[in-house]
Amino acid sequence: MIKIINGGVCAPQGFKAAGVHCGVRKNKSKKDLALIVSEKPAQAAAVYTKNRVQGAPIAVTKRNLADGITSAVICNSGNANTCNANGEQIAQQMCELTAAQLGFNPQDIAVASTGVIGQPLDITPIAQGLPALTAALSADGGADAADAIMTTDTTRKEIAVEFMLGGKICRMGGIAKGSGMIHPNMATMLVFITTDANIPANVLQTALRDDCKTSFHMVSVDGDTSTNDMALVLANGMADNTPLALGSADYAVFQKALQMVTVHLSREIARDGEGATRLLTCKVSGADDASTARKAAKSVICSSLVKSAMFGADANWGRVLCTLGYGVPELNPDNVDVSFCSSAGEIMVCKNGRGLPFCEEKAKEILTQSEVTIVVNLGEGKHEAEAWGCDLTYDYVKINGDYRT
Amino acid sequence: MIKIINGGVCAPQGFKAAGVHCGVRKNKSKKDLALIVSEKPAQAAAVYTKNRVQGAPIAVTKRNLADGITSAVICNSGNANTCNANGEQIAQQMCELTAAQLGFNPQDIAVASTGVIGQPLDITPIAQGLPALTAALSADGGADAADAIMTTDTTRKEIAVEFMLGGKICRMGGIAKGSGMIHPNMATMLVFITTDANIPANVLQTALRDDCKTSFHMVSVDGDTSTNDMALVLANGMADNTPLALGSADYAVFQKALQMVTVHLSREIARDGEGATRLLTCKVSGADDASTARKAAKSVICSSLVKSAMFGADANWGRVLCTLGYGVPELNPDNVDVSFCSSAGEIMVCKNGRGLPFCEEKAKEILTQSEVTIVVNLGEGKHEAEAWGCDLTYDYVKINGDYRT
Repeated sequence: MIKIINGGVCAPQGFKAAGVHCGVRKNKSKKDLALIVSEKPAQAAAVYTKNRVQGAPIAVTKRNLADGITSAVICNSGNANTCNANGEQIAQQMCELTAAQLGFNPQDIAVASTGVIGQPLDITPIAQGLPALTAALSADGGADAADAIMTTDTTRKEIAVEFMLGGKICRMGGIAKGSGMIHPNMATMLVFITTDANIPANVLQTALRDDCKTSFHMVSVDGDTSTNDMALVLANGMADNTPLALGSADYAVFQKALQMVTVHLSREIARDGEGATRLLTCKVSGADDASTARKAAKSVICSSLVKSAMFGADANWGRVLCTLGYGVPELNPDNVDVSFCSSAGEIMVCKNGRGLPFCEEKAKEILTQSEVTIVVNLGEGKHEAEAWGCDLTYDYVKINGDYRT
Repeated sequence: MIKIINGGVCAPQGFKAAGVHCGVRKNKSKKDLALIVSEKPAQAAAVYTKNRVQGAPIAVTKRNLADGITSAVICNSGNANTCNANGEQIAQQMCELTAAQLGFNPQDIAVASTGVIGQPLDITPIAQGLPALTAALSADGGADAADAIMTTDTTRKEIAVEFMLGGKICRMGGIAKGSGMIHPNMATMLVFITTDANIPANVLQTALRDDCKTSFHMVSVDGDTSTNDMALVLANGMADNTPLALGSADYAVFQKALQMVTVHLSREIARDGEGATRLLTCKVSGADDASTARKAAKSVICSSLVKSAMFGADANWGRVLCTLGYGVPELNPDNVDVSFCSSAGEIMVCKNGRGLPFCEEKAKEILTQSEVTIVVNLGEGKHEAEAWGCDLTYDYVKINGDYRT
């Protein structure tokens, strides 16, 4: 039994967080520096972007997480600290300055940055902002931290859940930021998850890696895999459960809790994709294997033509077939069914690869809702998958036509 | 010596063409039925979409081209005749009706359709329009045929060239249509090329397949591989040159002529991509092999973020690095240089993977031109490639938000 509770990264025992404006961004009303701290050193696991161009913070965080222990996360928005000559030095300084404030070892700090690529990141505002950030740390600071990591996001993304492991109450909380350059490759945008569950770092790493296949890896906003993707989980063990072992019943509960958190954040990232007016879900069933199901779902939500049609609430199912046709090499078009579904109802538009007559008005009503699901049955086997994206809108173009200035 | 001459598919000896409005489309001012006819049966070669969902005309054309001989091409726009229960029957009827008008064998007709997927294609307007279409056939009809195959294209795409093979004057002409669902996979959108060169069908097929790697395959408008892509070459041999053999000097001349035609059409398709305001070229050099160079160039012109930045004339080179980072698994980011170039000049913005200070005003001036080139040097080897795309604009979203209605 896993239930959703209020809060975010501070919901589990022993975590504090804060977010402030320090001046990386010019806009003073936008927080740009976030800190998450665990009272006890936490077991840590992370997955990173597979992009060959990687942000400097990724290199530093990878090094610092090598021992599986992390006590705090420092993250700025407004500048990705990527493709800069002194990038690693700045990221390292961020860890050292944070560690000095907290009385920690710099190797126990994870660092992340998000924003423009290729503009030198000045350490000055961060150094000057750290005392206020540290002073603001509190168990109520999760939302501020969630706000501070946002870039073009329009909504804060956080969630917390509660579950039992071996008779002990455990909690898990997470925050994330989108909302462009989102097409995670086995990793993700920026996601920070905390839990008080007792789980060794290597077990946590396996749980996270498996989880991503059906959560962050199934999100796409624009097909561009970021240079700074990172999903990081800190587990401080303060729930005092027996340490989780791979394959145990409690591990399965933990995985379910993790999936609840990550799928929620994945959906929120997709819903708040740059310029989006609708959350787009593609539910695929009837696949011969899980990988084909995932490929199919991802192909549909990645198509610029499907995304544009969804913006226009146009039931142009031929584009869904088209994207399956190039995204799924094994496709048998003659077995494919397609429906559109939302809170306004469900309508089947294609059966066995051929169009069905349908009521355009009803389809329009279904497609104008804020959450729309494209339901695909491949008609082959028993495997399923879900992927999340958003519509392609004028505002996506506007936001990205002049992002730097 | 290959020179560009006036005209299109009727430039070579023995070809006539026509285009009319027959009523597949409601808009009477838009031609929707095209016919290209060779006086003598032509050797024919074609490449088709690799999409698993294929238009019915593709199946029929493949069958009719099996013997390497084709005498005419019939093509409608406004309806793709794809995912329809009676699609093949309709495509077959199009061949039969055309053959009856021309006194040809139905097996010698190639058929193509382009437009909306999944709406039944009524044969009636085509049957009724064919007599007028046939009556209109003339050596001046190439432009009308080019107009009739257009969908959301805003400009006619045609070219003709003249070259010598063994002392004989040969000509080649081509027409094409874009302009959305353009991301050819070893094939292309609709392209029809005619030549009076004497070249056996199997040699022609090799020439076309090789050519596509550096022409149509290097174009992307929106990342969506169409269900109806087809590039078809008809060679009627009326130039009376010695039949071309693979590996001969004349074959090399023919290949160059073909590449001139296909690269021109590729660039025109990219320039006229749905909603585009700029033709975007990515020139990659310094690659270890040709395939890496092509992957790099294609990755840059496919990125929604790069395309949006180009729309905004924003010199956001970090996005170019990012797309290389996920598009080129072998990338060494520290060796990469990036410049922006147009008729207004050239500016280097990134050297060895790090940003260079540059004049924003100059960059803006360069990027606001109607043709912009992103110049990438991977700093590894001697291989080069070029790819063509366009910017991502409000109008792309508008055109595709409600295409069917």
